Amino acid sequence: MQSYDMVVVGSGPAGQKAAVQAAKLSKRVAIIEKASQLGGTSLNTGTLPSKTLKDTIEYIHGLGRRGLHHLGAELTKQLTLSDLMTRKDQVIETEVAVITDQLQRNGIEIIQGTAGFVDPHTLSVVRSDGQVDHVHASTIVLATGSRPRRPAEIPFDDLIVCDSDSFLRTTKNPASIVVLGGGVIGTEYASMLAAFGIRVTLIDRRTQMLRFLDQEIAQSLDAQMQHNGVTMRLGQEHLSITVKETGRPAVQLPGGKTVTADMVLHTMGRIGNTEALNLPAIGLAVDQQGQIAVNTQYQTAIPHIYATGDVIGFPALAATAMEQGRLAACHAFHVSETHDIKVIPYGIYSIPEVSMVGKTEAELAAADVPHATGRAFFREMARGHISGDLHGLLKVIFHRATHALLGVHIIGPGATELIHIGQSVLTYGGTVEYFIHNVFNYPTMAECYRTAALDGLNRLSHRPQSR
Amino acid sequence: MQSYDMVVVGSGPAGQKAAVQAAKLSKRVAIIEKASQLGGTSLNTGTLPSKTLKDTIEYIHGLGRRGLHHLGAELTKQLTLSDLMTRKDQVIETEVAVITDQLQRNGIEIIQGTAGFVDPHTLSVVRSDGQVDHVHASTIVLATGSRPRRPAEIPFDDLIVCDSDSFLRTTKNPASIVVLGGGVIGTEYASMLAAFGIRVTLIDRRTQMLRFLDQEIAQSLDAQMQHNGVTMRLGQEHLSITVKETGRPAVQLPGGKTVTADMVLHTMGRIGNTEALNLPAIGLAVDQQGQIAVNTQYQTAIPHIYATGDVIGFPALAATAMEQGRLAACHAFHVSETHDIKVIPYGIYSIPEVSMVGKTEAELAAADVPHATGRAFFREMARGHISGDLHGLLKVIFHRATHALLGVHIIGPGATELIHIGQSVLTYGGTVEYFIHNVFNYPTMAECYRTAALDGLNRLSHRPQSR
Repeated sequence: MQSYDMVVVGSGPAGQKAAVQAAKLSKRVAIIEKASQLGGTSLNTGTLPSKTLKDTIEYIHGLGRRGLHHLGAELTKQLTLSDLMTRKDQVIETEVAVITDQLQRNGIEIIQGTAGFVDPHTLSVVRSDGQVDHVHASTIVLATGSRPRRPAEIPFDDLIVCDSDSFLRTTKNPASIVVLGGGVIGTEYASMLAAFGIRVTLIDRRTQMLRFLDQEIAQSLDAQMQHNGVTMRLGQEHLSITVKETGRPAVQLPGGKTVTADMVLHTMGRIGNTEALNLPAIGLAVDQQGQIAVNTQYQTAIPHIYATGDVIGFPALAATAMEQGRLAACHAFHVSETHDIKVIPYGIYSIPEVSMVGKTEAELAAADVPHATGRAFFREMARGHISGDLHGLLKVIFHRATHALLGVHIIGPGATELIHIGQSVLTYGGTVEYFIHNVFNYPTMAECYRTAALDGLNRLSHRPQSR
Repeated sequence: MQSYDMVVVGSGPAGQKAAVQAAKLSKRVAIIEKASQLGGTSLNTGTLPSKTLKDTIEYIHGLGRRGLHHLGAELTKQLTLSDLMTRKDQVIETEVAVITDQLQRNGIEIIQGTAGFVDPHTLSVVRSDGQVDHVHASTIVLATGSRPRRPAEIPFDDLIVCDSDSFLRTTKNPASIVVLGGGVIGTEYASMLAAFGIRVTLIDRRTQMLRFLDQEIAQSLDAQMQHNGVTMRLGQEHLSITVKETGRPAVQLPGGKTVTADMVLHTMGRIGNTEALNLPAIGLAVDQQGQIAVNTQYQTAIPHIYATGDVIGFPALAATAMEQGRLAACHAFHVSETHDIKVIPYGIYSIPEVSMVGKTEAELAAADVPHATGRAFFREMARGHISGDLHGLLKVIFHRATHALLGVHIIGPGATELIHIGQSVLTYGGTVEYFIHNVFNYPTMAECYRTAALDGLNRLSHRPQSR
């Protein structure tokens, strides 16, 4: 039986970074991956394919934003959803090669098979040919990810009623679609498909999309998605789906209303991939979503077994999963890490993009921190007019007394890149004065930071000290 | 005669920011502008129009980069240069309104007319109707900008032989063009016109474009411009231009070679706008380029008279002009400013974009600072493959012993935005470890910073300490 300092189960972003970190500490590391291709959900059915679709759609959308339609320039061919799908496959292929290379360069052993616990330090690995091996590990990192929840009452056929995995294999070119679920996945797909010209209805039980966002930003996203043609039906309980004789799916809402479309995309909930792990054998429990509970060091109830990434739930983003994996490996091998969790950015690749770092106004109000805000609208920037990006908003939140930056919230094209400027100021404990004294290239969207800081300080000096 | 705490001559970026800074210090401020429209060269014939052209061209260029041609998608109409020109006018109009509003909100008096010195504290203002007024000022900021140099031997007709001002008014749609001059303006136009499909020949006396750039970045720009179809003819002395009987201009190079094209764009040199100022009346001299000499506080030989922006020469960029204007006003009114000049970014809006902040390798070698470099190529990033931006490069330079970040050099789409992340780390005196421990949104180009930092530290640990 092979023995390792660390065995990682799953080769998505969390697993990769845990393994690479351990390897860089000269540990003997193996990754067990059940799929024939490395990369996990992020690469194959999650982050990467959806971001590739979004990039192409946003690009095509830019024709109008730049006024090129007025100059008589349209695309010679109305691209279909199937056209876009072909692009993503090429991007995936390249990235699989990059990841495989990175793991191999770091001397990480890649074991193909399905892992399950025999005891807290031993995993069985069932290979695709049925052969079973065993590996021993001092430390184990579970990074098995998640998959779409498929409730029994939803008539999935993976053709016209899809989850977010099977949607990527669809050969349909729908003119209309119902997206069920207003979480990150549902919001990203609803917004991009609407921008692509598909009639979208977004349905969710909750009354607000993406509740972890700053409210003002979430409202702006809601408004811009509606402007792009998304019909919002939030706060809808107890819906059911039937496929009519015409072959079109229909979603029944409470009160007898029915929404019919060419396709339904179900994005409500994801389930942690924990069944095959045989967790009962070591006495580890999972919750109803198949998710594993961890402490702030990403340790499960068994200290030498860590869990990271989507299998532990929120926020279930690739970037945070990577950091969790890295931090778990650091903790396991006693490398002190003082990196403050508050400066992790969230990125939503909707159209328009949303990104945030630090605190929201609601969080600061709840914690009774005296704060102030400043805003810059993309339409105030020369860069905004140049690229026709007029609806974006960058908002800074800072301490009312010290002016220390507390949070940055952005909606608009490029938000996921732009956030990193505020993030570094936040990390270094800077104040909004940084943005005022900084010289930004002209014309850039980054200038929003200065305008927002000036707006914030200006409001502060002209308003009563309300809190 | 009206009297002011500060009179600013010229309403371009330098003048605007000097005036606004003084107004924010509750000073009585006037701006004298000779043109009927505010904004100076930057807005009307410089930065803004060229960046708008570049944005549209880069956008169209993106069709191919994203592989959309392979999907059968072309533009229905081959856009012409004239089409692109119409877009910029709308952007200019909006920005003039923004600037006018900003100056008025700050209570800055706007005086239309041409300013000239009567004595060191008195300016005459000749209005367009011939009326002459006089204003008195405790402090004067000269921000009159520059204009294209038009050597007598060049047969400018502003139709087929243009400078960078008249080029923006051209109604020609050339299939080929000779760009004379490999400075910022020449490089930007040559690269964007080539990306637009015009056959471009770039000719310069110097043997290297943009010598202030990091050499590796400059070479990459050279290579990418050639790849996009620019024919480079550097190191060409003593050229002359004739217009042939066919109406096409021909550029004679030394050695008898002639380059013929539909148009010539002359960008070699700019002249400071100083003639009308009547500087001899107060004993201030200018050099051969009409430029005014200043000290590090932007003071001329007469301490209460400052000069900022293009009229003082290099780097003649809008963003640096703004900062010079602001710093001059701060110095004039004894506001201490500790902002370190090293963290000012340079942005070149070529296709691809180039941006830098901090030191180059050559500067550090000359100063005998032990340094190391790390590189990330855009093709290593998932984001690069998503948008088809594969040829970019981000390079970090850091201190070999302390790992303090010393410079960042980027070539590739979005470079002018991306530089601001490195800039803030530089300002806070951070090390490259920041990039390694930072969590970046995935997938973004910002991740290049982490890859470059890892590459740099990795090289350092595997190579002999050569310096």
